[in-house]
Amino acid sequence: MYFASDNWAGVSPKVGEAIAEAGRGYAAAYGNDDLTLALKARLEAIFEHEVAFFLVPTGTATNSLALSALCPSYGIVLAHEESHVVAEEAGAPEFITQGARLIGLKGAGNKILPATLEAALDRLPPPDWGHPRPSALSVTQASECGTVYGVAELTVLAGAAKARGLGVHMDGARFANAVAALGCTPAEITWKAGVDALSFGLTKNGAFMAEAVVLFDPARAEAVRWRRKRAGHVVSKARFMAAQFLAMLEDGHWLALAGHANAMAAQLSSGFSASGYRLAWPCEANEVFPIVPKALAGQLEAKGAQFHEWPWQAYDGAAPAADETVLRLVASFATRPEDVEAFLGMLRAG
Amino acid sequence: MYFASDNWAGVSPKVGEAIAEAGRGYAAAYGNDDLTLALKARLEAIFEHEVAFFLVPTGTATNSLALSALCPSYGIVLAHEESHVVAEEAGAPEFITQGARLIGLKGAGNKILPATLEAALDRLPPPDWGHPRPSALSVTQASECGTVYGVAELTVLAGAAKARGLGVHMDGARFANAVAALGCTPAEITWKAGVDALSFGLTKNGAFMAEAVVLFDPARAEAVRWRRKRAGHVVSKARFMAAQFLAMLEDGHWLALAGHANAMAAQLSSGFSASGYRLAWPCEANEVFPIVPKALAGQLEAKGAQFHEWPWQAYDGAAPAADETVLRLVASFATRPEDVEAFLGMLRAG
Amino acid sequence: MYFASDNWAGVSPKVGEAIAEAGRGYAAAYGNDDLTLALKARLEAIFEHEVAFFLVPTGTATNSLALSALCPSYGIVLAHEESHVVAEEAGAPEFITQGARLIGLKGAGNKILPATLEAALDRLPPPDWGHPRPSALSVTQASECGTVYGVAELTVLAGAAKARGLGVHMDGARFANAVAALGCTPAEITWKAGVDALSFGLTKNGAFMAEAVVLFDPARAEAVRWRRKRAGHVVSKARFMAAQFLAMLEDGHWLALAGHANAMAAQLSSGFSASGYRLAWPCEANEVFPIVPKALAGQLEAKGAQFHEWPWQAYDGAAPAADETVLRLVASFATRPEDVEAFLGMLRAG
Amino acid sequence: MYFASDNWAGVSPKVGEAIAEAGRGYAAAYGNDDLTLALKARLEAIFEHEVAFFLVPTGTATNSLALSALCPSYGIVLAHEESHVVAEEAGAPEFITQGARLIGLKGAGNKILPATLEAALDRLPPPDWGHPRPSALSVTQASECGTVYGVAELTVLAGAAKARGLGVHMDGARFANAVAALGCTPAEITWKAGVDALSFGLTKNGAFMAEAVVLFDPARAEAVRWRRKRAGHVVSKARFMAAQFLAMLEDGHWLALAGHANAMAAQLSSGFSASGYRLAWPCEANEVFPIVPKALAGQLEAKGAQFHEWPWQAYDGAAPAADETVLRLVASFATRPEDVEAFLGMLRAG
Repeated sequence: MYFASDNWAGVSPKVGEAIAEAGRGYAAAYGNDDLTLALKARLEAIFEHEVAFFLVPTGTATNSLALSALCPSYGIVLAHEESHVVAEEAGAPEFITQGARLIGLKGAGNKILPATLEAALDRLPPPDWGHPRPSALSVTQASECGTVYGVAELTVLAGAAKARGLGVHMDGARFANAVAALGCTPAEITWKAGVDALSFGLTKNGAFMAEAVVLFDPARAEAVRWRRKRAGHVVSKARFMAAQFLAMLEDGHWLALAGHANAMAAQLSSGFSASGYRLAWPCEANEVFPIVPKALAGQLEAKGAQFHEWPWQAYDGAAPAADETVLRLVASFATRPEDVEAFLGMLRAG
Repeated sequence: MYFASDNWAGVSPKVGEAIAEAGRGYAAAYGNDDLTLALKARLEAIFEHEVAFFLVPTGTATNSLALSALCPSYGIVLAHEESHVVAEEAGAPEFITQGARLIGLKGAGNKILPATLEAALDRLPPPDWGHPRPSALSVTQASECGTVYGVAELTVLAGAAKARGLGVHMDGARFANAVAALGCTPAEITWKAGVDALSFGLTKNGAFMAEAVVLFDPARAEAVRWRRKRAGHVVSKARFMAAQFLAMLEDGHWLALAGHANAMAAQLSSGFSASGYRLAWPCEANEVFPIVPKALAGQLEAKGAQFHEWPWQAYDGAAPAADETVLRLVASFATRPEDVEAFLGMLRAG
Repeated sequence: MYFASDNWAGVSPKVGEAIAEAGRGYAAAYGNDDLTLALKARLEAIFEHEVAFFLVPTGTATNSLALSALCPSYGIVLAHEESHVVAEEAGAPEFITQGARLIGLKGAGNKILPATLEAALDRLPPPDWGHPRPSALSVTQASECGTVYGVAELTVLAGAAKARGLGVHMDGARFANAVAALGCTPAEITWKAGVDALSFGLTKNGAFMAEAVVLFDPARAEAVRWRRKRAGHVVSKARFMAAQFLAMLEDGHWLALAGHANAMAAQLSSGFSASGYRLAWPCEANEVFPIVPKALAGQLEAKGAQFHEWPWQAYDGAAPAADETVLRLVASFATRPEDVEAFLGMLRAG
Repeated sequence: MYFASDNWAGVSPKVGEAIAEAGRGYAAAYGNDDLTLALKARLEAIFEHEVAFFLVPTGTATNSLALSALCPSYGIVLAHEESHVVAEEAGAPEFITQGARLIGLKGAGNKILPATLEAALDRLPPPDWGHPRPSALSVTQASECGTVYGVAELTVLAGAAKARGLGVHMDGARFANAVAALGCTPAEITWKAGVDALSFGLTKNGAFMAEAVVLFDPARAEAVRWRRKRAGHVVSKARFMAAQFLAMLEDGHWLALAGHANAMAAQLSSGFSASGYRLAWPCEANEVFPIVPKALAGQLEAKGAQFHEWPWQAYDGAAPAADETVLRLVASFATRPEDVEAFLGMLRAG
């Protein structure tokens, strides 16, 4: 029963086959291969828009490089205080942008409200050289709390950012889960809603390594090109990453996998509710955050369930009592209904 | 007939199987998986020494992070003027060390002579805060010119660096080819000869992505740990990279592959010699640099052979005449004797 | 009537004489002159402690270099959200530390409460390489709001920081005003209260250019030495800055000047109170922030008074009404009682 | 007898008066004062060209900021291997440009020949994102060896740089000495000869602190504006620096002072020649590099003469014998003929 993280899962069989296939024969290095070239058209079809894209090995690098397309070294990035770019990357955005400042905003369920953004921008200095320049808003979709911005919701938030001259970045390490949950098109939740740069991650969704910076304004690509090279993120056998993307994006495989993970999380969520437990936040994608007695958490762990307690968190949802704790359970493409059922059985027995 | 680069080749079947195997089931992320943990013992056995190591997605990142273990942001790195770190990484070492200076040294066949190093160090300033501090020597093994430092040769060179307080880095993107060519142990050509930090690359040798910073003094690891994270090089599904390393290092597979590539290069080299062509540098690993008439280069290309002409090169070996050019032919684990023979046939017919 | 800022004033006659004197004859460059050497003993006498110090041309550089003594490139600095380092330096601390993150804390009158610091630290991640490392607390003394930390107050705050392993920096661009206001010794409000690094500024107090990084732990000096040089802050004719410091520190001249400025601010403050105006924060040093009708502000300006309105401020004190505004009036060593009286006359006539 | 460096001298009386005058009364901070504003017109009159300029406290900062106007973080700067930017700034250009690479070129007397530049550029990679981009040539005028580029000479050199797309920077820490020596206009030896960015330094020429980045293309100023702020180089009481510049530039005072220093050096040079000593390089500005017996150097020092031996130097001029050494003697505005005569007397007596 592995619910620790979706990046503990392996690869989907289709992706595995694509990797194996890509390993045969010769191909040009550094992204000049046929697969990488083919991926451009595939991405443009998926997003219904011209794009510039960069395959990058990690989500952290993808986020940092995407932000560097929007934010100069003297810029400010606004993001949720518990977002990955703020809390989990040890300052990679600062490093790769060579000095940008990240400012953390509060918000229930890891989502930022337009009023919070406006208030933060009101407090920031005017855009002159004596002050850091507010340059980008970064949102996470789906968020670290398993919540999802609706299309209308995101449109308002991104609009507030753009009205002040900020660019909009979306950390889409779980973009597939969000799109599957919303039932919208990738275009509707990205550029149509105001997103300029997307970190498009499929690693957590059943690939080994499939992350890309996707820019909806190719003119922003030049700055990223250099930074990617200088940060050591130009993979020589890039076709292997492209192959994973292509396999994922064929016939909606990526959304099928994400939809499955979401369904498994919903099954978990229902089970907790049925057993009378509250959730810290609603389950909107593939993560569930039940509030349980600390004793129960220990019992589940003792029985071999894999999950994390969620420690230094912005509890702006339902808060645990003193003898309670918040669990984070992540479902993945590989989670089987019987795994969930077994876990819920332990819960009921707990 | 693919001789453009060894990174155009695919993956060896054993590596492919290991990748497929690693994709099944669950494993802890970010290098806490069993495969990555097992790799430590394997590396220590191979190198007969305690090591700290970091799996990193690209050779450029590996080099830069390895250098950052030896060189502060105000340091100087000495390397051959045509080495990868100087000429091919767009300033990644400067970026990742946050400001170190690279100084290019001359030397025939991309190798640095001790006297050249000494002379460069003599001209450098004393180690006070008013001047950049000479901090590291970086050598490439096998070099960009397909040449190889002998054990004794490297020991003298590294000794000259260490006598001045510099650390020694080895860019081993083709380390396997060098070890196979020398017939020595990995220990003899690294820490026993004075190497402190090795970029150990197996990507060119038949992996998809297998690069590691190997530090023979684990105390140097702390600085790298942070920089790796901040530069976005902590791969979530690290087991996939570890699996490739483990498959390579099992039963000497890495040396068998490299030995084959070297043999194919030797066959090419002999063919050129037999046809009366000079080499720009001796063929000591898996690269051959024949000097041929420009017309012949065009004919070979027209017949479908893949290779590069070697343009802005430090010709300190035999120089081409005005109507000649230097080709770079790289053999890989995947090169077959019949490919070489077919190519040499074209040459003879040319 | 110049109340725009204390850095609009010129130099005190004693400082002017010292500059003139320093300009005669020859002296070693780069801080090897007699005046700079003499300054060490003077500072150590004033602070009753061994110090390492660096003369630096600007307050921004002083703050950034002082922070770099406490905070690595992957560190976090906590400071008030309206402090100079956060709001007024365009990211200089990020630039000079090569990537540290500044996190702004709230607090009335630009002062941070221990509970606010504790809460912020509670939300920050554990000190591992996956997260930025909380490294320093920066306080401003006297603050941007003209408020002053008491000795006991600062001791508690600094203690809370040190208990978590953070170093403590004091931005003392108006350190003299704070010491004069508190009537304590410089030692009591710095190292005895827990301060590790002081930005000691006397430029606003009647010098042309007199700023110094003062480190109470000389072992921290090495990192600053290199950064100062590389950031271009080693002044060749350093004696000229040392001369200003020495003149200031002779016979308590610095405290006499600051005490005068404080007294002038108190006279202003009393005048506003007497005329029935509130202050946004209490006047504790040489700045006064009266809340006045917008119409009055315009009239005063029209009559030639020089001051700033205080725009994007954390109004955690008394807030202005819709038709009111907050003025910032700064008194300096050069402010004369008759200037204050003339201004208050305008106010009463307003 | 102070010949150690021109920055050991004090200030010219006219500059001292200007400093004193600037210290009276109030003035806007951060360069918004009348003196700084007046300086723009003065500089434009001197250079017969529109300029953007930045007053900066040190020569190192001036050089680094000027280079940052020409060179991105992924750029290459070519300069003489013994130039100040390469050998004496501890990597400040790398720090302030956030990663540019400096490549040192050889050349007799610290001057670069066009052919040397061309050869270096020929060896550099093509301008794509895989390689650092050659961006700027930096020349020193007058050089560290006291030599001076003639107008025609510089025009050819700068033209070679510009033909390859490089910008041209001039380190003019001793610009006044060069202009006085050449007898040309400041325009002729800067923008008319191809210079884009000048480090205009008058500190060594009799000021306390007077250095400016002068850009002949104001469009390049934007990048410098931010970097200057972030590197902590915006001086609050800027009028004091402006006052020194204005006093220097009034009625040719700067050239009178420099001409005097040059004449004193010429007197020294003649004295050495008359006594039969060789010079390492011809004396063309205010520095003299005589080759003398080591024993004599010791005797002169013992008698109280202040000078440096010139240690790790590119001896591409006349080389000293084993028992000889090269002295560096620098004359300044403050050097008196009788000082020179006394020194030469010691020499003859030596």
